Amino acid sequence: MRRDEDSPLSLPGGGEVDSAQAPGEGTAVLGLERKLAGKLLETMGNPPFALTLWDGRTLEPAPENPVARVHIRDRGAFYRLLRHPDLHFGDDYAAGRIEVEGDLAELLTVVDLTRQQRHGHGGGRPGLTSRLHRARRNTLSGSRENIHHHYDLGNDFYALWLDEDMVYTCAYFADPEMSLEAAQRAKMDHVARKLRLEPGQTVVEAGCGWGSLARHMAREYGVKVRAFNISTEQIAYARERARAEGLEDRVEFVQDDYRNVTGSYDAFVSVGMLEHVGTDNYRDLGAVIDRVLADHGRALVHSIGRNRPIGPMNPWIERRIFPGAYPPSLSEMTEIFEPYSFSIQDVENLRLHYARTLEHWLARYDANEEEVRRRFGESFVRAWRLYLSGSIAAFRAGSLQLFQMVFTRPTGNELPWTREYLYPAQAE
Amino acid sequence: MRRDEDSPLSLPGGGEVDSAQAPGEGTAVLGLERKLAGKLLETMGNPPFALTLWDGRTLEPAPENPVARVHIRDRGAFYRLLRHPDLHFGDDYAAGRIEVEGDLAELLTVVDLTRQQRHGHGGGRPGLTSRLHRARRNTLSGSRENIHHHYDLGNDFYALWLDEDMVYTCAYFADPEMSLEAAQRAKMDHVARKLRLEPGQTVVEAGCGWGSLARHMAREYGVKVRAFNISTEQIAYARERARAEGLEDRVEFVQDDYRNVTGSYDAFVSVGMLEHVGTDNYRDLGAVIDRVLADHGRALVHSIGRNRPIGPMNPWIERRIFPGAYPPSLSEMTEIFEPYSFSIQDVENLRLHYARTLEHWLARYDANEEEVRRRFGESFVRAWRLYLSGSIAAFRAGSLQLFQMVFTRPTGNELPWTREYLYPAQAE
Repeated sequence: MRRDEDSPLSLPGGGEVDSAQAPGEGTAVLGLERKLAGKLLETMGNPPFALTLWDGRTLEPAPENPVARVHIRDRGAFYRLLRHPDLHFGDDYAAGRIEVEGDLAELLTVVDLTRQQRHGHGGGRPGLTSRLHRARRNTLSGSRENIHHHYDLGNDFYALWLDEDMVYTCAYFADPEMSLEAAQRAKMDHVARKLRLEPGQTVVEAGCGWGSLARHMAREYGVKVRAFNISTEQIAYARERARAEGLEDRVEFVQDDYRNVTGSYDAFVSVGMLEHVGTDNYRDLGAVIDRVLADHGRALVHSIGRNRPIGPMNPWIERRIFPGAYPPSLSEMTEIFEPYSFSIQDVENLRLHYARTLEHWLARYDANEEEVRRRFGESFVRAWRLYLSGSIAAFRAGSLQLFQMVFTRPTGNELPWTREYLYPAQAE
Repeated sequence: MRRDEDSPLSLPGGGEVDSAQAPGEGTAVLGLERKLAGKLLETMGNPPFALTLWDGRTLEPAPENPVARVHIRDRGAFYRLLRHPDLHFGDDYAAGRIEVEGDLAELLTVVDLTRQQRHGHGGGRPGLTSRLHRARRNTLSGSRENIHHHYDLGNDFYALWLDEDMVYTCAYFADPEMSLEAAQRAKMDHVARKLRLEPGQTVVEAGCGWGSLARHMAREYGVKVRAFNISTEQIAYARERARAEGLEDRVEFVQDDYRNVTGSYDAFVSVGMLEHVGTDNYRDLGAVIDRVLADHGRALVHSIGRNRPIGPMNPWIERRIFPGAYPPSLSEMTEIFEPYSFSIQDVENLRLHYARTLEHWLARYDANEEEVRRRFGESFVRAWRLYLSGSIAAFRAGSLQLFQMVFTRPTGNELPWTREYLYPAQAE
């Protein structure tokens, strides 16, 4: 996110309160406004947090044991919240016009759970959100722009709060108390085991981040990997580390779109890319896998997902943090497999692992807040804190899932009889 | 299947060769007919079996190492095969007008694999097959008729070739060499573990067969089970065995449709019923589960499935053996979950386990062939041999799958961190 460019006062898309017409800020809260605030909380199912308005007074009745206290610092933020809370809470939080006293992730978890209880099936405004969504198509050039926005913020930035291997996807906490570093290695091993890699085999990876999985598979499983990514900064980093580790002959990093993958491979893997592909392109992704996977091949797709298709995740995240991102439901994911010759072998939902991963990231991020502030400014610090906390909330509350899907060709019978091989004695 | 009633000469649905107009039987094979036979094999992708026509001569060129030899005994069967091989092969095989020398299951596997290679995505005639399919709706009364057709052939009949617990669903071969009895117990344990049953909890089962899983869960896991089934003979048997085993206070067998399930339960389980539900009713099934599953509940659906939605399985099986049956693809199965408050936790594909299960059943069936013949006659013997062999073929060739799906409510966090608990040391 670039400050100034995306200020909440110049939001695209229309429908916002015109600040010229909104009541002036700093003035006393009107009786009508207290009623509107009460209505807002009611719409949210009255989640147990305290709400303080810009006159410093807390809305009555306040809940008995509030998980946190939300301060709306001015009238403009209040009216924007009424209009479209999912979008404007983020912008006004980032700008400091909304502040939270207490555990932000816990607050957002409770809000999410309350909403689910109230709306049953997730609620939301599919009409509006899908219109917003359509603005950010993942065409070849659209994807480049979208990916650049998020992943090219600078490797140094991500190094402040990711693990030492720079893995920016859900870890696997075989033991919930293991370190982030250990859990990321456990994830890479879990993926590699699911792919049943054998020395000398070839693997193609679509969307390789900073290359940690590609290097891990080459180093620990003796396979040859071609890994694709369109992020300039990530590819440069990935190549540099492969050189430093002497893995150049076994890992090739290609700066190109997954749609341009060629060749034939024993395994296809994609961890954390599908979120950026867009449902419109799932058939194309399936066609790519169908084209490059050998007859005896194994494929794994690891992606954030949802329990049902209801538009993009949070519109603020989609606009400010992850343009073009969309977490699919299982029915949407089947568009990748069912038009082609594939057979689903295994699906595992690891949502609690992502909540845990994000807790580690947030703790490291908070510890490095000063450095982030120095480089990007206060509003950026707050926006990313909100993004990490909101993601923790979504995985804790069960409104986001993490699906790992393993699939093969339909006809081969070289399948393991049980999944016990995924669970060797945990002696790590 | 009742003999005489369903003779291939009075097939419903039209489109068959009029036997009055067809060339007389027993006459010499015409040159044109040899060409048509060659064409038929070509359409099938030239699978490696030898084909002998009613004049006793084998079609040239015969494959070098044929897996089997198919004899078409008369001209009527030949013309019916040309029209609609998937339907008429079964009827004419049952009537003895088509015979197979060699391993029937192996022949059918090879035919299935060849067809997949040729057609890529399964081929078939969706137009015709879905029209046939629509004839057998699973309404409340339709389901009763359909289930009666298959499951009320007599418990004695099934006892001839099922295991001692009368489990008529895919077993779980934790070790492929284990006995059928052990593999069925392993399956029931695998299901019970996936449901994370604890003593004193309540379970509702939709479609309980002869009651083996319900009794197993009550006996081995200390839960209280209400089990539903609309088959009169199965329910009578299930109750009798529960009485004999002293489980009456913990297992209640209800002769009713799954749509009439009431109450609230810690676990919902359905093993081998979904095949008989019909996609039109998946939303209703989901609504039933949504209504009766407790907030912390776990649910498991175990069903034959397919890699993509392409109409009913084999039309002959759907007509003669399993009226109303339909194996769904994953995208179709998501209709049960996505309209409601559920979250998929785990999907496992056990298709090779079903091939293995069926091999055991077929061996026992073959060993008891005389008894089946005495009770039902030759045509029935042959029809069921074909059904069991064809099912082996479909699971071996990967045109049928066996999906076990575990799902929960979206919001609870009482989920195990890994699936290792499903794999205790195999000391059985």
